[in-house]
Amino acid sequence: MTDVRVTGLSAANSVAAQRMAQADPVLVDVRPALAALPGMQPHMILTSGAPMPWSAYTGGQRRAIIGAAQYEGLASSAQDADARIAAGDILVRACHDHGCVGSVTGVTSASMPVLVVEDRNSGTCGHCLVYEGPARQRLTYGVWNDAVRDQLLHVRDVIGPALGAAVRAIGGLALKPIMRRALGMGDDLHSRNVAATSIFYQRMAVPLLTTPGSSDVALEVLRFLEKSELFFLHVGMASGKATADTARDVAGSSIVTAMVVSEREFAIRVGGTGDTWFRAPLPPLEAKLFEGFTPDDLAFMGGESLIMETIGLGGMAAAAAFSLQDYSGGTPAAMIATNEQMYTITETEHPEFKIPFLGFRGTPLGIDVAKVVTTGVTPAIHMGAAHRDGGHIGAGLLRAPLEPFQEAVAALHDAAVA
Amino acid sequence: MTDVRVTGLSAANSVAAQRMAQADPVLVDVRPALAALPGMQPHMILTSGAPMPWSAYTGGQRRAIIGAAQYEGLASSAQDADARIAAGDILVRACHDHGCVGSVTGVTSASMPVLVVEDRNSGTCGHCLVYEGPARQRLTYGVWNDAVRDQLLHVRDVIGPALGAAVRAIGGLALKPIMRRALGMGDDLHSRNVAATSIFYQRMAVPLLTTPGSSDVALEVLRFLEKSELFFLHVGMASGKATADTARDVAGSSIVTAMVVSEREFAIRVGGTGDTWFRAPLPPLEAKLFEGFTPDDLAFMGGESLIMETIGLGGMAAAAAFSLQDYSGGTPAAMIATNEQMYTITETEHPEFKIPFLGFRGTPLGIDVAKVVTTGVTPAIHMGAAHRDGGHIGAGLLRAPLEPFQEAVAALHDAAVA
Repeated sequence: MTDVRVTGLSAANSVAAQRMAQADPVLVDVRPALAALPGMQPHMILTSGAPMPWSAYTGGQRRAIIGAAQYEGLASSAQDADARIAAGDILVRACHDHGCVGSVTGVTSASMPVLVVEDRNSGTCGHCLVYEGPARQRLTYGVWNDAVRDQLLHVRDVIGPALGAAVRAIGGLALKPIMRRALGMGDDLHSRNVAATSIFYQRMAVPLLTTPGSSDVALEVLRFLEKSELFFLHVGMASGKATADTARDVAGSSIVTAMVVSEREFAIRVGGTGDTWFRAPLPPLEAKLFEGFTPDDLAFMGGESLIMETIGLGGMAAAAAFSLQDYSGGTPAAMIATNEQMYTITETEHPEFKIPFLGFRGTPLGIDVAKVVTTGVTPAIHMGAAHRDGGHIGAGLLRAPLEPFQEAVAALHDAAVA
Repeated sequence: MTDVRVTGLSAANSVAAQRMAQADPVLVDVRPALAALPGMQPHMILTSGAPMPWSAYTGGQRRAIIGAAQYEGLASSAQDADARIAAGDILVRACHDHGCVGSVTGVTSASMPVLVVEDRNSGTCGHCLVYEGPARQRLTYGVWNDAVRDQLLHVRDVIGPALGAAVRAIGGLALKPIMRRALGMGDDLHSRNVAATSIFYQRMAVPLLTTPGSSDVALEVLRFLEKSELFFLHVGMASGKATADTARDVAGSSIVTAMVVSEREFAIRVGGTGDTWFRAPLPPLEAKLFEGFTPDDLAFMGGESLIMETIGLGGMAAAAAFSLQDYSGGTPAAMIATNEQMYTITETEHPEFKIPFLGFRGTPLGIDVAKVVTTGVTPAIHMGAAHRDGGHIGAGLLRAPLEPFQEAVAALHDAAVA
């Protein structure tokens, strides 16, 4: 370990963390994935997590991928979709390799509208699907049926285009001021986005209403936003991707640039090792479930909203969001303790994202795999909980497994001595 | 003191606190003061605080009253207004005696639009002026000039009527859910209302846009709301008056039903002594001032927003609003200590207004003058700071003086043994 710390990583880490700290994410457009995402193809379906062979997808993530194939008209049935994917006629790829991050299953196909966020400092872009709506059952949570199809069509045909037009009309919406402010209003910007969504609503209402087009559509978008408390999560995630990717090409950096889960694995990427995934089996999720559900109902089906922790939010800002007690469980004392622990594994403190309870101390920013390994403290991650048959059934706290961090340190060490 | 506690007050206090806890305030209309306020007259000007002789008003409160006389066309000049008030041709009265509460100077005249809030449980109504706008200089803060006149006209002719029509169209807007939710988003609902205003915006946008009338006007109201972070304070205050007045007629109660300040005095009312004011000289305000101002600039010019503390908010919910550090000063530790102290002088805990940091403990509700006197702990009040020449220059913490509580206890004792 010591070798890693003394071979110039600290300068690289400082660069990586500073790039993330200085990022200026701006929502510039909402466009179909095919038009927006680098390398996207009509017969490609993106999904969360470090990629696995198709046969390894057996649960909600598989259901959502097969659903998307049908939704896009790439397959006539679930069986047909399965065969075409197995044959390589439909490509299943990782969101992170196409400038994108996905919520839960993260399934993103060509016609679905994505939020386009640009870091105005570096030009780096990040993308994420537009939030699907507040229904418990959605493709994001591994459900595919007619109601889900209708939701997706509504977002594709109404919500996405109207938001895109309004955002273009105002020349982009700066997101950092919204995120900074929402942290002062009890959001962690991962499991809780009610303040950010509310501010987003306020900033976009007049642009939506004054952009040429049907005023009925503008009203429909406002009604959709009002009932979608987690809407901003996807905006924040696209912002997170644009921010974290600024640290992706810093040679020698031991700062985490992505954390993801699939149905089976937790995985991370680190600046100094580029696009290599360091993987481990999934740790348990300590979740608080909606009424009527039990821990037996839980299943993982992917997720890349961990990009929020990667940029110093979510579990890194737990002490900003005491209201999460009601939603994802835990006590204020535990949230504070967890949050303070995160300062021991991060490179710096965010200059703008601040925690009121901690006297406006900046959030812990830049997870350093070397510090994780030295301390044995792994990132605390806020995360939604999925039902094994699909559907959103709660939220909770995930503690990253140590192994991927150990493997990353070993790989950085090998690279440094090579 | 002991006598007071054993002569049946505890049952009366329980009734008083329960009425406040159960109040269901609904914004039902926005109408001119003359039409809405009981006993209002065209040549009457209401102002904050326990009433004083006209000659006692010498600062910002005097300026605002004289300004309102000119605004209403009741006087042709400041000198004329002064003479007519002195002669009794223009009446200066207390807001609280006309179903109303006023922010800072609290100056409310016949044509100004007031928010009409009805407690759906009891039918009790409370009123407060519509927020004047975000300018530092306004009548509320003791300034009268052409710009202030234009602001008042804009609120009277555009904002008030449009909001009134939209609120009537939806059959009223329930406020308790908004206030409850805002507490979970870092508002204390006195010095900080940014979350409540944001939720209010979301709830009212579609009604404003779909109520028959000019869509340009609806957009104008939305723009006004977006820049007016304290807008909801006045909505909350009207709600506070409707709530606190439910405890105004509980015989034998030692629960505070109003706290007010004028230019010269702090005063309270208590349920068991009806409309008697118990007064004392003003205590100091520990304020954090906007850049460029010093404590020498400070002056009191009235205020009845203390109705928020009366119903268990503001200083009673300090630990819900750590972001106030930036605005009104203090540390999280001090906010928590102050908040916890408030439980020692209150009758109960609010069943719906809850503080996330305290594990969703209900806010301290129902200030009991007997407990205040026994403990020597007086209410902690969040309050705006005014410049002696007029204008809003900061905010801070006011500790109520003990004397009015002592006098109230003595009066309750006299009444009990009479």
